[in-house]
Amino acid sequence: MTMKEWKFKENQNLKTASAFSIKRVLDDVKNNVNPSDERPVIPFSHGDPSSFSCFRTTQVAEDAVVDALCSANFNGYAPKGGALQARRAIAEYLSINLPYELSTDDVYVTLGAKQAIEIVLSSLRRPGANILLPKPGYPAYDALSILNHIEVRHFDLLQEKTWEVDLEGVEKLADDKTVAMVIINPGNPCGNVFTHAHLQKIAETARRLGILVIADEAYAHLTFGRNSFVPMGVFGSIVPILTLGSLSKRWIVPGWRLGWIARNDPDGVLKESGFVECIKRSLGTNTEAATFIQAAVPQILEKTTDDFFVKIIDILRKDADTCYECLKEISCFTCLQKPEGSLFLMAKLDLSNLEGINDDMDFCSKLAKEESVILLPGFVLRMKNWVRVTFAIEPSALEDGLARIKAFCERHATKQ
Amino acid sequence: MTMKEWKFKENQNLKTASAFSIKRVLDDVKNNVNPSDERPVIPFSHGDPSSFSCFRTTQVAEDAVVDALCSANFNGYAPKGGALQARRAIAEYLSINLPYELSTDDVYVTLGAKQAIEIVLSSLRRPGANILLPKPGYPAYDALSILNHIEVRHFDLLQEKTWEVDLEGVEKLADDKTVAMVIINPGNPCGNVFTHAHLQKIAETARRLGILVIADEAYAHLTFGRNSFVPMGVFGSIVPILTLGSLSKRWIVPGWRLGWIARNDPDGVLKESGFVECIKRSLGTNTEAATFIQAAVPQILEKTTDDFFVKIIDILRKDADTCYECLKEISCFTCLQKPEGSLFLMAKLDLSNLEGINDDMDFCSKLAKEESVILLPGFVLRMKNWVRVTFAIEPSALEDGLARIKAFCERHATKQ
Repeated sequence: MTMKEWKFKENQNLKTASAFSIKRVLDDVKNNVNPSDERPVIPFSHGDPSSFSCFRTTQVAEDAVVDALCSANFNGYAPKGGALQARRAIAEYLSINLPYELSTDDVYVTLGAKQAIEIVLSSLRRPGANILLPKPGYPAYDALSILNHIEVRHFDLLQEKTWEVDLEGVEKLADDKTVAMVIINPGNPCGNVFTHAHLQKIAETARRLGILVIADEAYAHLTFGRNSFVPMGVFGSIVPILTLGSLSKRWIVPGWRLGWIARNDPDGVLKESGFVECIKRSLGTNTEAATFIQAAVPQILEKTTDDFFVKIIDILRKDADTCYECLKEISCFTCLQKPEGSLFLMAKLDLSNLEGINDDMDFCSKLAKEESVILLPGFVLRMKNWVRVTFAIEPSALEDGLARIKAFCERHATKQ
Repeated sequence: MTMKEWKFKENQNLKTASAFSIKRVLDDVKNNVNPSDERPVIPFSHGDPSSFSCFRTTQVAEDAVVDALCSANFNGYAPKGGALQARRAIAEYLSINLPYELSTDDVYVTLGAKQAIEIVLSSLRRPGANILLPKPGYPAYDALSILNHIEVRHFDLLQEKTWEVDLEGVEKLADDKTVAMVIINPGNPCGNVFTHAHLQKIAETARRLGILVIADEAYAHLTFGRNSFVPMGVFGSIVPILTLGSLSKRWIVPGWRLGWIARNDPDGVLKESGFVECIKRSLGTNTEAATFIQAAVPQILEKTTDDFFVKIIDILRKDADTCYECLKEISCFTCLQKPEGSLFLMAKLDLSNLEGINDDMDFCSKLAKEESVILLPGFVLRMKNWVRVTFAIEPSALEDGLARIKAFCERHATKQ
């Protein structure tokens, strides 16, 4: 045999998992943009507004990282589970909103929330396990569950009930092989914020079913509607909660790759069961966040002032209003909920009001081609003929983009 | 069922993989240190000399990262596979030592060399696959192969032949399910440097067997003996080579988590086979290196001046000499090769010259307890009754530590 004839056999599981990639679908959509269109491309599709100057992170955070780097004390490997000062600072930061104190041991530093998902799932995997994921949700959970050989079952978020969890559906899906359920609050992609009462019901349901709750709080504190943010960890004495979070969204630094897992488990159920040992093993086989960024975490969490947070929330609130008010006037979108948190809303396409548009992918592709506006087709979130819209962009670009969407829909409207 | 009774079922594969952890074994060794010993602990066990002031990285590298961070252009997510400017700079950096040019497409940026291993192995996995690893080697390959369900087979490095690969052994181990062989050059843990002729023989063997070569060059250019460093990629037209590298060791910044995978495959065997698509999928399900650190790579690779490299090599050469000359005079160590590269040497324990010492772990534990000196027991590298010694420490600490090892061995010497 010569190497020319080298036959590679594909990892099928990796192929299946990769189908759930927002990035890949967006690349396909973006390929339709007409390079001769001289207008700027308007990205309504990202989860990362950091490139807009109004969303620049606080000087406090930049200074903290520069200080840590230039001390030359943090060029070496970080301890598994994270630098102690970072773990302690995150524990204190999260405890402010909890009825009990987290300890340094309850927190693990991760490479953003995404590695936190991977570590939790690889710790939970076992033969035959299944996990309950929200629909719509965040496709990385699907991909990483598949890679960890955990069967995925989806429960609905109920649009008519402000995207609350269909708890009856959860009860029907769960069995004795169910290891956990995932909630994302504030909601990606629906822009909803769960009430205290609803979170308590979720906790009680999970307790009854004997399953953990994985609470994805990547968008924690990014709320601007009726419901303020309540961390799921508040209900840690009802059921053990694994809270996933990061600096990425609140500080608008997703490229820094700094996240965490917090064990909200005041009764020590997870420790007693051996799960904590398993999390440590998984951390041991994974790579750590850059040490000097970890070392900057205490200064970032303790010194960032409210004016930064207030400024960002103000922009998001106005952006959300502008986006919602405009889209609800466009006849091809229906059933919108006004977003109250995160960076997103979901809009349903009414294809009967559109001519020559087959589905959500077709809508997004033609919109990209004709208007250089990028939306995420809902099918990748298992919501065919919906679109996910990110309103977190520079206000002037937002207005420009919305006007283009409106023009596109009018041009393609069914002739009455 | 109440949550108090929550039964967690351990991920057995993760447990098996975690046995191959240098970190865990070292923690066990360090637990023996007597807290009332007022002398500093001397770490002869690490792969990370960054905490010693003489090994501080170059100002060029620190400035490059600060510049990238403070531009605020790199707070967002990085593209999958890495920032283009980083990929291009790494391709140019590696091409200097190759008979052909690498392109930007041939390089993927990773979170240090460790994530590079994970991405390559997860791309190669398939039912029944096996991989050939060097013994002694780097245990992360064992752990990550197990996690990827790839069977591990070990070939010997031959001490009597300056730790060259036992190529006859390789031929005997390989079969039609063998996907790759791994070499680490310069050598971790043996401190050897392969000759051009030997690397060519490795390439020819791999070609005959129809397997890839994964060339771990984490210690590239850290050589100070007869053989200069030859990148395995030189032989890319004999057999496809996946080269793994990083900034960690040459720039002494392992905590920055910046590494790469380079495809040395001028004939395009890997691309044609579909393997490249699989690598991309694996990158898509993994997390990227911090974006601003990626953005600093061109400046780091292009602007670092020779005086920095020369200074570091001088320290390593002197450290290696001091360490080797001292250890070979101690009767409980035998069969030492003088190290010519990397940060390590392997020393064999002669237990017959020691009283009351059972094995390598016992030796290291008692040495830690009595002398506050930390060595890595060889069993975790599958070399029972050997020790791995890192000589890359501050020269004064090196002399202090060697004197303590000598005193320990004399105290425990068999009475004649």
